[in-house]
Amino acid sequence: MKKSLGAKALVFPTPVWIIGSYDKSGKANAAAVAWGGVCCSRPPCVGISLRKATYSYGNIMDKKAFTVNVPSEKYVKEADYFGLVSGKNEDKFARTKLTPVKSELVDAPYIKEFPLILECRVINTVEIGLHTQFIGEILDIKAEENILGKDGLPDIEKVKPFLYDPEVYTYHGVGKRLGSAFSIGKQL
Amino acid sequence: MKKSLGAKALVFPTPVWIIGSYDKSGKANAAAVAWGGVCCSRPPCVGISLRKATYSYGNIMDKKAFTVNVPSEKYVKEADYFGLVSGKNEDKFARTKLTPVKSELVDAPYIKEFPLILECRVINTVEIGLHTQFIGEILDIKAEENILGKDGLPDIEKVKPFLYDPEVYTYHGVGKRLGSAFSIGKQL
Repeated sequence: MKKSLGAKALVFPTPVWIIGSYDKSGKANAAAVAWGGVCCSRPPCVGISLRKATYSYGNIMDKKAFTVNVPSEKYVKEADYFGLVSGKNEDKFARTKLTPVKSELVDAPYIKEFPLILECRVINTVEIGLHTQFIGEILDIKAEENILGKDGLPDIEKVKPFLYDPEVYTYHGVGKRLGSAFSIGKQL
Repeated sequence: MKKSLGAKALVFPTPVWIIGSYDKSGKANAAAVAWGGVCCSRPPCVGISLRKATYSYGNIMDKKAFTVNVPSEKYVKEADYFGLVSGKNEDKFARTKLTPVKSELVDAPYIKEFPLILECRVINTVEIGLHTQFIGEILDIKAEENILGKDGLPDIEKVKPFLYDPEVYTYHGVGKRLGSAFSIGKQL
């Protein structure tokens, strides 16, 4: 028997992604988001949602570009900090001592120290309610060589991304491998 | 120095959610999606993306409703199976021996055996490319009592959801707690 918990934005897993953008003066900003996900395979696109009140919202509306930066577990404090304060009031890169690198593909900065980054061009914005969703076409993915597996693809156990637990407000790491997709279901 | 991997829909983490829907004849279907995420807090909304070719696409376009069902690790084979075959050709509930329960809020079935489910009414559809995104307002969340923590909220370590690793095609569980959100960043 299931218990009703009401209408909430609560589901597992949700990501912890740091969104890179530039303001009109060219200052790099970084903001933490958990409201996001891949939304198309061809063209490859990711959707991220922001409130209008955020500094990143104005930046991305203006530049039509953002980056998605996937932090490793070792950057959990920095990632949390990016969600604690607004770029209107603080230079978040100065405080975290992380390094913004100008993308050559889009007018947005990515975070040098993070293992996996996506460079995105905004192709659509969707007004939903408190949040606006920015749909970004992924023009390139860049990864540190030391997180690549033998297949040349990012190895999730080396990237060590983490999850956000909405409402409970905790972060969790990635656990053990459970099986191969499009494969273990054949054992049913 | 980062290596370019090209334009791909590859980022961590992505969820494994099973989407419940009814066809015109009232037959329950379930499909696995990894392209999805929360997209608004107020009203609480989740976005999921489907290809037009899928059976669920037609069902959801017709009924304007779906459920998001979060599987536990113990259902990894069933979840994978839901992504292996089409409801056009198979009765997926019969094969998995899982139980569709008619939602009282929306015209879609949820999965009785899964610990956490969301009942969603479609409020928008966004044509992106190969995939169409359905934005569903979350009208209620329902959870099994045995996965609730002391705070009355779902405990991610009891739910045991899992992640999909795109391109590499593997599933991973949830790992250890790393810290409190909106808190540990203050230690910077």
